[in-house]
Amino acid sequence: MKIKYIAYMASSIDGRIAQSNQSGIDWTSKEDSNFYQNSLKKVDAVIVGHNTYKLASRRNWKDAIVLTSKVSSPKVKGKTIFLNPKKSNLKKFLQNQNYRKIAIIGGSRVYDFCLRNKMMDELYVTIEPYVFTAGILMFSGNEFKKNKFSLQSIKRLNKKSTVLLKYINRN
Amino acid sequence: MKIKYIAYMASSIDGRIAQSNQSGIDWTSKEDSNFYQNSLKKVDAVIVGHNTYKLASRRNWKDAIVLTSKVSSPKVKGKTIFLNPKKSNLKKFLQNQNYRKIAIIGGSRVYDFCLRNKMMDELYVTIEPYVFTAGILMFSGNEFKKNKFSLQSIKRLNKKSTVLLKYINRN
Repeated sequence: MKIKYIAYMASSIDGRIAQSNQSGIDWTSKEDSNFYQNSLKKVDAVIVGHNTYKLASRRNWKDAIVLTSKVSSPKVKGKTIFLNPKKSNLKKFLQNQNYRKIAIIGGSRVYDFCLRNKMMDELYVTIEPYVFTAGILMFSGNEFKKNKFSLQSIKRLNKKSTVLLKYINRN
Repeated sequence: MKIKYIAYMASSIDGRIAQSNQSGIDWTSKEDSNFYQNSLKKVDAVIVGHNTYKLASRRNWKDAIVLTSKVSSPKVKGKTIFLNPKKSNLKKFLQNQNYRKIAIIGGSRVYDFCLRNKMMDELYVTIEPYVFTAGILMFSGNEFKKNKFSLQSIKRLNKKSTVLLKYINRN
């Protein structure tokens, strides 16, 4: 069985997902938060970076794979696995767990890693009505690449200007 | 009469408006290009940065105010005025010209400058279906600020996944 990887991100109009690596996503709308929490109920596991993991207010995930450079071999703590993708084969690990659907929940480096490693089949972007002009970007890449997506749906999440875009990866 | 300032930008999903300061916007859709060119017919002038000015393929603008640090006082060349906003009062200059509607057409520093100086009443963002992971950002700010906008409309510009969002500045 092929695993389906689905990325979720909430962004400002200008593509910023947070003020800093230490700040959470308290600026997003209630409607996005509901959409996000409901979506996470439907997946078998989440892939998350160490910073985002530490900042997450609710961790009602089934399994969590925390990507970190701080371990050399996978370390299991209950439903959480700390894994260093430079030292362990992440894809093989996920296959062995028999996951079908996995959510990619950030931050920037994890989104970038998953995109580069063909682990992003779908992408949900919630655009909240702010311009931040600074802050953390969606993808932290160094290399410009024209990754093609196709838009599957547009949804207004509330009357207060929040939009949800769903894309399919075409690469 | 109050001048109405309208910003236009075409962006990747991840908020990048160009690969580099030397690259144009040849990656945008025909439909966005048509929308953009038609919009520019309806304004009295455009405000543009020096780099973007040099890269523009068509310059069928009525008047152009080119923001640049390379002049100390405004220099007029036909319908083009080169102006240094650190040395001249841009707003006063625009008022004296009796402009009613002005388009802000980038790049990053010009968008940022106009937003900070309350010269951005409306914002049109075209999102093309790519993730670039690197490149030039919409706004080149150093300071994080929660600039509030409200979404006025969403439009699919074509079948190929291009979306046009129209926002009103609420600050």
